[in-house]
Amino acid sequence: MSMYVVGHKIPDSDSICGAIALAYLKNQIDEPAIAARLGELSPETAFILERFGFEAPLFKESYAGEEVYIVDHSELTQAPDDIAKATIVGIVDHHKLGDLTTSTPLECWIRPVGCSNTIIKMMYDFYKVDIPANIAGIMMCAILSDTVIFKSPTCTTADIRCVEALAEIAGIEDFKALGMEMFKVKSAVEGTPARVLVMRDFKDFNMNGNLIGIGQLEVIDLAVFDSIKADLEADIKALKAEGKRHSVLLLLTDIMKEGSEMLVISDDSELTQKAFGKATVDGKVWLDGVLSRKKQVVPQLQKAFA
Amino acid sequence: MSMYVVGHKIPDSDSICGAIALAYLKNQIDEPAIAARLGELSPETAFILERFGFEAPLFKESYAGEEVYIVDHSELTQAPDDIAKATIVGIVDHHKLGDLTTSTPLECWIRPVGCSNTIIKMMYDFYKVDIPANIAGIMMCAILSDTVIFKSPTCTTADIRCVEALAEIAGIEDFKALGMEMFKVKSAVEGTPARVLVMRDFKDFNMNGNLIGIGQLEVIDLAVFDSIKADLEADIKALKAEGKRHSVLLLLTDIMKEGSEMLVISDDSELTQKAFGKATVDGKVWLDGVLSRKKQVVPQLQKAFA
Repeated sequence: MSMYVVGHKIPDSDSICGAIALAYLKNQIDEPAIAARLGELSPETAFILERFGFEAPLFKESYAGEEVYIVDHSELTQAPDDIAKATIVGIVDHHKLGDLTTSTPLECWIRPVGCSNTIIKMMYDFYKVDIPANIAGIMMCAILSDTVIFKSPTCTTADIRCVEALAEIAGIEDFKALGMEMFKVKSAVEGTPARVLVMRDFKDFNMNGNLIGIGQLEVIDLAVFDSIKADLEADIKALKAEGKRHSVLLLLTDIMKEGSEMLVISDDSELTQKAFGKATVDGKVWLDGVLSRKKQVVPQLQKAFA
Repeated sequence: MSMYVVGHKIPDSDSICGAIALAYLKNQIDEPAIAARLGELSPETAFILERFGFEAPLFKESYAGEEVYIVDHSELTQAPDDIAKATIVGIVDHHKLGDLTTSTPLECWIRPVGCSNTIIKMMYDFYKVDIPANIAGIMMCAILSDTVIFKSPTCTTADIRCVEALAEIAGIEDFKALGMEMFKVKSAVEGTPARVLVMRDFKDFNMNGNLIGIGQLEVIDLAVFDSIKADLEADIKALKAEGKRHSVLLLLTDIMKEGSEMLVISDDSELTQKAFGKATVDGKVWLDGVLSRKKQVVPQLQKAFA
């Protein structure tokens, strides 16, 4: 019986590249595995897979009765809907410890680093399995994406060393140039429907019983949003109502200016004041230096809801 | 600021030896750490520490405001009472994934092996830190205890290889003989009050909203219980009432015959029939081949409560 290796809902590059890289590793150590995904590829991820010659992993939503290796989260809200009927055999992740539980022992490779693929590289090292050049390429791109080319406060020395090692294996001389190319693909938002943009990197969190949806769009210049910001605001308002959410927040992150404008719709008009010490004005607040949802947004909100 | 490295409530040898071994490792890699414990040493653990020249770790129950590295579980019921006010920086464990959660990223070294100390040995290898002979000795004893000298179904090849490597570092030629000495200490139950015996290796589990307490006593010959079994039965009945538990189960494990007599007091008279396919008669049921609470008792009960 093969296990399925699958990342979170609304998969990002870490979830997709991680599933491919980990499934390959597991197959090398005689643990049959199939890479899978819970949603559509983002343009960034499609760019990475095409660049290194991979097909998208299997689209599969239901896992009842299957063995599953979870990539890039440990949260019920981000897992397959029927995960309770599956057997979780492992988790590789770099976020806070979420509310997934199991009834049998498993393996968890969880580290406070910038990207799950950095941990998957440690797993290759542990099992002494060589990484093929094209897999090294997608792993490297996932780390460059998650760490915003090393600019994010989540980036650690381990992530940088890992990218350097993977770039050598992949034969990529200028990995920062490839990273910028990737973020240019990510910045092409014109002509895309608001809902598609909002959902591109969207995660729901259960914060003390309140459902909080947080999206993020990372671009090279926030000016790309000028003509569509009103549409984005209308869309997160609709999304809040549809999902009975307490709040929906959308981070518009400028990776060059290194900060984020947050669009806010919430049952609590003081939410950003409480969490970030800065009031929301006209449904917006600029958060200087904020690049990371995981490190600079989620913990602060969780404290506000505690 | 030092982190505290601490195992579960009612600590066993894995929790105590693991806290000492992991705190030492952390100090070697410039992460100041203090080994701690949540309860009294068992006679077995006291024997191990004396054999290799260690004092008991610091007894400390409250961790509010502190950084904590959790050893040998990931369950709220087994953690310090005020763990929600502490920062969990890491977990090393070999059980099912429990209900501990965090609000910030952490490291988790969780593997489906027989003992947390086997994983701590992997951590030493990862960080390339030499294990001092006396620390190798206590780690080895913890693994021999948790795996019942390799007889438990939880024992893996990794545990056996690990004991062999640690025995060499510790300079112990006949580690199986040392293991038997350890289990003889564990088998000396005469003259000990029933409550002390029941609580010696006792864990509470939250099973679908029901509190289930499960104790285990591993001995070389079940005959040692003949004169005290009635006292043990009366005590688990009292313990059930005091803690508002749904059930209290006490496994009397014969490590030579390789099976367990389970003493049962439960709100559900069919519990062992549902979980193990065998009815409880006069408050007792013999479970042939059952040596491991973790692998042969807890998952089966959880299914019965699902």
